[in-house]
Amino acid sequence: MPLNVVLVEPEIPQNTGNIARTCVLTGSRLHLVKPLGFSIDEKDVRRAGLDYWPLLDLTVYENLQEFLEKHKGKKFYLATTRANKYYHEVKYEDEAFLIFGKETTGLPQWLIDEYYEDCIRIPMHEKILWRSLNLSNSVAIIVYEALKQLGFPNMR
Amino acid sequence: MPLNVVLVEPEIPQNTGNIARTCVLTGSRLHLVKPLGFSIDEKDVRRAGLDYWPLLDLTVYENLQEFLEKHKGKKFYLATTRANKYYHEVKYEDEAFLIFGKETTGLPQWLIDEYYEDCIRIPMHEKILWRSLNLSNSVAIIVYEALKQLGFPNMR
Repeated sequence: MPLNVVLVEPEIPQNTGNIARTCVLTGSRLHLVKPLGFSIDEKDVRRAGLDYWPLLDLTVYENLQEFLEKHKGKKFYLATTRANKYYHEVKYEDEAFLIFGKETTGLPQWLIDEYYEDCIRIPMHEKILWRSLNLSNSVAIIVYEALKQLGFPNMR
Repeated sequence: MPLNVVLVEPEIPQNTGNIARTCVLTGSRLHLVKPLGFSIDEKDVRRAGLDYWPLLDLTVYENLQEFLEKHKGKKFYLATTRANKYYHEVKYEDEAFLIFGKETTGLPQWLIDEYYEDCIRIPMHEKILWRSLNLSNSVAIIVYEALKQLGFPNMR
């Protein structure tokens, strides 16, 4: 039933904190692929004031290979500025995996090549195409589009 | 043509920074209503690494009254968890003003009462209705829904 949000090697703790909050508030699962640019030890998470963290359905993977092997055959959507499809033009499946790359460089090119038909992008103003949205904002936009298509399950 | 994003008394600089980035990337105008919980002096903005700030179409108001007087009669949408309409159920007009309150307490109740028919909310999981999304995430979700309805003008 729930959506799956996947962050591949996220670097900035505030982004992952905001995304964790979005996951809790939407009933989505969060998957983090190491290496992470921060600690998710209980003590550090508590110090960062993430009071919703204990409510999070979280899985951590040692590397991208482990994630891909564990979820082979699942429906993936890869968010990348290098996609030729828009995020609002695809039909999201229940239990879909929405996959996002690191803040500085995005997803690795080999992964984009392998799943090119499942890559999606967010439209931006034609004058500023050399930049991208904040990672947690991109996640929020795509998660809410997918949830809307799925009828906002168990949400109100 | 562009949308207008209005932040009433925002408190957390990182949120306003992310929202400014979303505005630049979507060709939207940003309106900030004082008091702000941070400085937007050129020096401080530069120190925070907001390299897109000079591209921002920004207006600052001394208080909410000044904003309301200047934009009387414009089409407002107020984002609040106290709304009875969902953000995806309204029809956004061109040049609409999307208005968001401060992180801790949201918009003032008198403003919500005055514009109750124009209040919108974002669905959340029924188990976690006592919390809300990060402010910059809420802005991103509503801005992109409005832009989608308007056909993503000058975006690609």
